[in-house]
Formats: sequence, structure tokens, C-alpha cells
Amino acid sequence: MKVGSLCACFLAKRGYQIQVYEAREDLRKAKHQRGKSINLALSHRGRFALRSVGLEEKVLENAVPMEGRLLHSISNATKSIAYDKHTNQCIYSVSRNILNEILLTAAEKYPNVKLFFQCKLKDVFLKEGKCVIYDSKTKEILNIEADLIIGADGAFSRVRRCLQQTPLFHLNQSYIEHGYLELSVPSERGHLLVPNLLHIWPRGEFMMIALPNSDGSWTVTLFMSLEKFKEIDSKKKLKIFFEQHFPDAIDIIGKEALEREFLSSSPNYFISLKCNPYHFQDRALIIGDAAHAMVPFYGQGMNCGFEDCTVLDQLLEVHGKCSFDIVLEKFTQRRREDVHAICDLAMYNYIEMRDLVTRPTFHARKIIDDFLYKLLPTIWLPLYNSVSFTNTRYSVCMRNRQWQNKVLSIGLCILTVILFVSIFCLM
Amino acid sequence: MKVGSLCACFLAKRGYQIQVYEAREDLRKAKHQRGKSINLALSHRGRFALRSVGLEEKVLENAVPMEGRLLHSISNATKSIAYDKHTNQCIYSVSRNILNEILLTAAEKYPNVKLFFQCKLKDVFLKEGKCVIYDSKTKEILNIEADLIIGADGAFSRVRRCLQQTPLFHLNQSYIEHGYLELSVPSERGHLLVPNLLHIWPRGEFMMIALPNSDGSWTVTLFMSLEKFKEIDSKKKLKIFFEQHFPDAIDIIGKEALEREFLSSSPNYFISLKCNPYHFQDRALIIGDAAHAMVPFYGQGMNCGFEDCTVLDQLLEVHGKCSFDIVLEKFTQRRREDVHAICDLAMYNYIEMRDLVTRPTFHARKIIDDFLYKLLPTIWLPLYNSVSFTNTRYSVCMRNRQWQNKVLSIGLCILTVILFVSIFCLM
Repeated sequence: MKVGSLCACFLAKRGYQIQVYEAREDLRKAKHQRGKSINLALSHRGRFALRSVGLEEKVLENAVPMEGRLLHSISNATKSIAYDKHTNQCIYSVSRNILNEILLTAAEKYPNVKLFFQCKLKDVFLKEGKCVIYDSKTKEILNIEADLIIGADGAFSRVRRCLQQTPLFHLNQSYIEHGYLELSVPSERGHLLVPNLLHIWPRGEFMMIALPNSDGSWTVTLFMSLEKFKEIDSKKKLKIFFEQHFPDAIDIIGKEALEREFLSSSPNYFISLKCNPYHFQDRALIIGDAAHAMVPFYGQGMNCGFEDCTVLDQLLEVHGKCSFDIVLEKFTQRRREDVHAICDLAMYNYIEMRDLVTRPTFHARKIIDDFLYKLLPTIWLPLYNSVSFTNTRYSVCMRNRQWQNKVLSIGLCILTVILFVSIFCLM
Repeated sequence: MKVGSLCACFLAKRGYQIQVYEAREDLRKAKHQRGKSINLALSHRGRFALRSVGLEEKVLENAVPMEGRLLHSISNATKSIAYDKHTNQCIYSVSRNILNEILLTAAEKYPNVKLFFQCKLKDVFLKEGKCVIYDSKTKEILNIEADLIIGADGAFSRVRRCLQQTPLFHLNQSYIEHGYLELSVPSERGHLLVPNLLHIWPRGEFMMIALPNSDGSWTVTLFMSLEKFKEIDSKKKLKIFFEQHFPDAIDIIGKEALEREFLSSSPNYFISLKCNPYHFQDRALIIGDAAHAMVPFYGQGMNCGFEDCTVLDQLLEVHGKCSFDIVLEKFTQRRREDVHAICDLAMYNYIEMRDLVTRPTFHARKIIDDFLYKLLPTIWLPLYNSVSFTNTRYSVCMRNRQWQNKVLSIGLCILTVILFVSIFCLM
């Protein structure tokens, strides 16, 4: 919904006639808001895209800044790590629903955009540029023709399923054996958590995090192996588990709320999906989760989807006067490497968040990175900073990290040799 | 069609009521037989499955044995390599259509099997065990319910597409940048090729092969990068290409037939597809290409699909009195590793067939393998032999090759040391 409506804004600004079909009802009118509630972390790429359509300010008004991570140890000690010590840049926690509302309202304001809700895509005829859509309000089947079909229809995208039937379409869809379950801290207890930080309880094989909401409440998410979730099936087991691993969180969430929320829900799964190409001739394109569903551990899922819109807009600026085929071809060429890189980085960051952050080597590296970044700000940009606070292509961020690793390894070798030589000379 | 009708025979023998729905028309009655004509290589696993339902003899009557490979060099020299020097085992070239006919006729003979042609699967409701099928003869939509849905519906399986929407389903679909194009040697020219051998023209980056048909004709297949296929777009370029790379093949195929067949067709693609699991609860199972589409370079696509039927039958024998869920769960557990191994081996064998077979190291290894196989037949089974002439699990074949490689590496090191020591002592 987010990426689709943002894309509609971008295209509307360029004068195209846009029809947006959304399977769910209009959440601004819905009594019960369903769907994933996991908070979203908005960072530079997402902000850049929102700014381009004049929505950054409005979104940030409804978001809560997070300046760093606060690590909770088992002994209830905490340690904070700023995202960016020198320039004080931060990421923003934003509610999925508020963001969707802002984007839908903005898209609707363009006279050349029409929104249709409760309209579910049933089939796509790629070559003919035709969509078969079921309108559940009128119970009618709509046959829609378009010059370009853009599928921003999520990880289980039907447009992608049609692309998947065309020759030379590569797809890699996998699940991690871990799931997530959401808990919450109500606003009246919100003060128990230090504000403006992303709280993490890293426990090696699993972890819990908390993100702030603008009303003072917090959304807590427990990430853990599906097997471990299965094991904890009673109040007693839940109590033992939390007392052992997250003792300080029991009071923050509240014992009764914890039992109610944990035992009444089942964990959700994480899909990770890479594919290629993202387009079919000059007829169809997939963006957002439809093109690259990633695990949420880098907080880049939405930012990457929003960046798809920026890239598409830039390509339309340069090549849009020709036909769509050059634009779409170049979109695939441009995004493939970057999108695969961030999918891999997101997978890696789960290990960093739940385990590596507790190790001295992680903190030593962070100190070295911060020092070199201050010394050589244009040359030594740490990975997290370049991903979250710049528009640097994801693939370049990844390659920078690789050469930085090499430099540090060589540096470490030289230091070791100097140390040995010094000891030898002293003896 | 093959794997589905073979599976029907297996299940019918066990007394189940079977309905087989086939999208195409009954090829025994069809005027024009369409679809892939690339010959199939039948080896031990396929024969074993056919034998279990009493069809091996009938199929072998219509097949042509191939005792080894015959390599054609650019200078028109040939060199033969037997598949199995000691026991004279061979693989069989069999026409896809003849095999399908035999299997359909056999399935039809069981009173508890019903075949329906021109019935295309449109949708599957996995939980409910329901299939929506379009009968193009009567133009009717059929709603079929079944205790167990088995999808043997090929590489673009619709049953798999439904499984793909369920949580924890892993899928890896890729294409190689090479395609294939079929040519033919008519029976009147068939004598120009040495009989009972698989002919290979290995050329490093590409290759051509020829498989015999029972009527004396040969099916020739050229495997090459899609780019290279595009380049050859005129009679002149085709002539230059064949004179340069396959000079002896021009006369065998015939200049005019070559031009006609090559220039009137476009190359086909190869999909390679691995997934997991192969089942959904006790409701659905995918087998054959639907579960594991592989490139054809090990000649194991059909054999692996037929082995799926053998494995399912064995599991039904042991666990069939309980419900299907144990059988299907065990099927996935049993096949996953094996099927992924043969998909990888098939991909590797393309490099062996088109390139490595021309290298002295390949022939040296073959001599060592043959020698050790003769010396220790129960211990040292070469990879090709264990894949093609035994029921050894594919994953075990692969692991055997790995320890054999290690043993040979260590042997080579020891020999080198002995050699150096000897030289040193002589000096």
C-alpha cells in the first residue's frame, strides 16, 4: 500500500493518468485495522523519496526519532550506542497505519490519480497489459487495460507470479527458521523505557526489540526460532523464560499483558525473496516487497521500496520521453545488484543485532569506525551509516565495507608485527 | 505426463481410486504431437521404477542402448569412452512420445484409474483438497475433491505455485544463459553415425550431442549461449559456424536440412528449480519436474521423477496404513537432499560434457576410476556409474565423489613427495 501510493504520487507529478487498485478496504474508514503492525524505521532513503513528493515534513511530525540503540543485558544493565556520534543523524520510528494514511490522502489529492479499494487482482495478462480485478464491494469482475502495470502488491505479489512464468526469470524465495511475535508497552508505562532509542535485548540465538510510538506507547517484538516459540505454551514456561532472559521487561510490559499477548498469538514468519528481472518488456514492473522481500533487521524494507520509486522517477526524467521499455530495462539493471545486496545485509544484520552487539570485538570495531569516520568523513563511512544516512547504492555500501575490512586486517597484521619486533628488541 | 501416469500405476496397484487430469489431448489420438521432443536417457533408477509396475521390458523393446560416449574432435577424429567397461551396463535412448503412450495405456488398464484429457488445472485449494479444472472439450469448470492431490504438472506446476504461497516454502528458480536447439538426422543417413553410442561434439563453451532413435534416425541437440544463437542468423553465418566447429556434422545432418531446421526455430531455455518441502500437510504432494526441474546434462530428469514414484511407493508400503501426513512428511525428508544433489550435479555435468571431456586430466581420472573400480568394485564406484547404474541415493553419490577426490589428492601428494625424494637420492 505504502510503496504503491508513493509511486502514484511520483507518477502523478509527471502527468500520467493513474489508477490504484488496493485489495484491502480504505484503512482511513475501516473500523478494524488489520495487517502487520510492526513499526517501520524510516531513514535517509525513505525520507529522500518522501521529500521529493513534499511529504517528508508531514511524516516526520508523526514519527519518533531514535538516536541509537540501547542494549539491555540479562543483569538489567544498559549500554547505549549512538547511530552517528558526529552528525547526530537518527532514524525514525513510524506507525505503518499513519504512514499509509498520509500517503493515500496525498495520492488522492492529485486529479489524475484514482484510488479503488477492496479490489483484488486475480490475474494479469502481461503481453496484453490487462488486469483482471475482483471488486468485492460490487461483486464485479473488472477487466482493466493499461500501458504500464506496476505491481506493488507485496511479498506474495500476483504480478510477480505472472512474471515468474516468463523465460529467464530468476527467483530465490526462502524463509528463516525464526519468527516474530508482537507485544506492547501501553503509553502509561512508556516512561519506563529511555526515550528516543531503539531498545534491544540481544540474547545470542534470539532477541527482543522495542520501538517507540508517537502516543508514548512502545511496540515490542520478540524474534526467536519457531521451535522455541512452540516450547513456551503455558504461563509457567513464559514466566521462567522471561525471568531468565528478559527480567527487566516483565515490569515494563506488565505481567498480565505479557501473558495475554504472548499466549493468545502465534509467531509470524519472515520471507526473504530475491528475483530478477523486475520488468516485462514495456508492460509491467514490480517494486517494493513484490520485487525484494527482505527480513526486517536492517530497517530497510520500506526505505528500499521508497528508493525504487526515486529510481523509477529519475529514469523517467532521463528516458521517459522514449518508450517505457528503456526505462524498465534500466530499472532492472540499476536495482538488481543493490537490492540483492540489501537483502543479504538484512539477513546478516540479524546475527549482528541478536549476537555480535554483545561481543567486545563489535564495540572495538565501532570505536575504530567512529574514529576513522571523524578523521576521514568522506572516505571512511561505516556500513550502517552509509546504508541508513546516505543515498549511496547498497552494492557500493557493501563493497566499501569489504575494502574497510581488508584495510583493518592489514593494519592489524602490521600492528602485530610491530608489537612482536618491539618485544623482541626489548628482550 | 510420464511421471503422473507412472505414479497412477503405482497407486492403482495399491488399490487407491485414481483420477488423472491431463491438460493436453490424448497423444495416442492426436494428429500433431507437440511439446518437447528432446530424447530421454533411461537409466537404472527409471528402469527400476518401470520394472516395479511391469513395464520395463516393453519400454526397452522401444529403446536404443547407448554403451558409451563418442567424442568428435574438430579435426573429425573420434574417441569412444565406455560408460562401464567391466559390467557393460548402458543407458537407453527412448522417445518421449513412445514412453508416454506406453505409460498412459498401462495406467488405463487398471479398473481403478480414470484418465481425463484436455483438462487444465486452474486452481487448487490445498486445505480443502479441492481442484478447479477447466475441461476444454465440454467448456465446463469441474470442482474435484480428493483425499490427496499429487501435482506431477511439470516445471511450471500450478500445484507448486499454490504451495509457494504457504509459509516456510523455499524455492530457487534459475535459468542458465544457454539454450538448446534441435536438429535431426533422418533414418536414411543414420548409418553415418556409429550406432549405440551417445555422440558428443564438445567445444568448450558449447556442445552438440546426438541420441539414436529406434527407427534409425538421430536427434541432434545443439547447446550454446543464447547470445551465440542470436548471432547466427543467416545461411552464411551458419555455414561458417558449422565448418569451423562441427565440420563432420554438415554431411551427417545434410546441408539443406541443417539450414531449414536451424534458421526456422529459436532456441529453448533451461530452467533449474529446487524447492522444499514437496508436500502440504496430508493434502498435496509434488513430484517430477514440479518438484525439481533440472538441466538435462546428467540425463537424470526423468529417472529422478520415476524414482520419486518408487520412493512414494516404498513409504506407502511402510507407513501407508497410517494417514498420508507421515508418508508425505517422510517423502520430503527423504528426497530433499537427494534431489538438490542431482540438480547441482546436472548443472556441473554441462561443464564436464562440453569442456572437461576434452582435457587429458579427465581421461587420466577416468583411467584411475576404472582401475580402482575393477580392483575394489564395492568400494570405489565412480560418480557417473553410481548415479546412472545404481539406486544409491544421489546425495550419497555426491559424498562418495568428495571422499574419492580427497583420497586421490592425498595419493597425488604422496606420489609427488616420493618422486622428489627419489630424484634427491639419485642426485
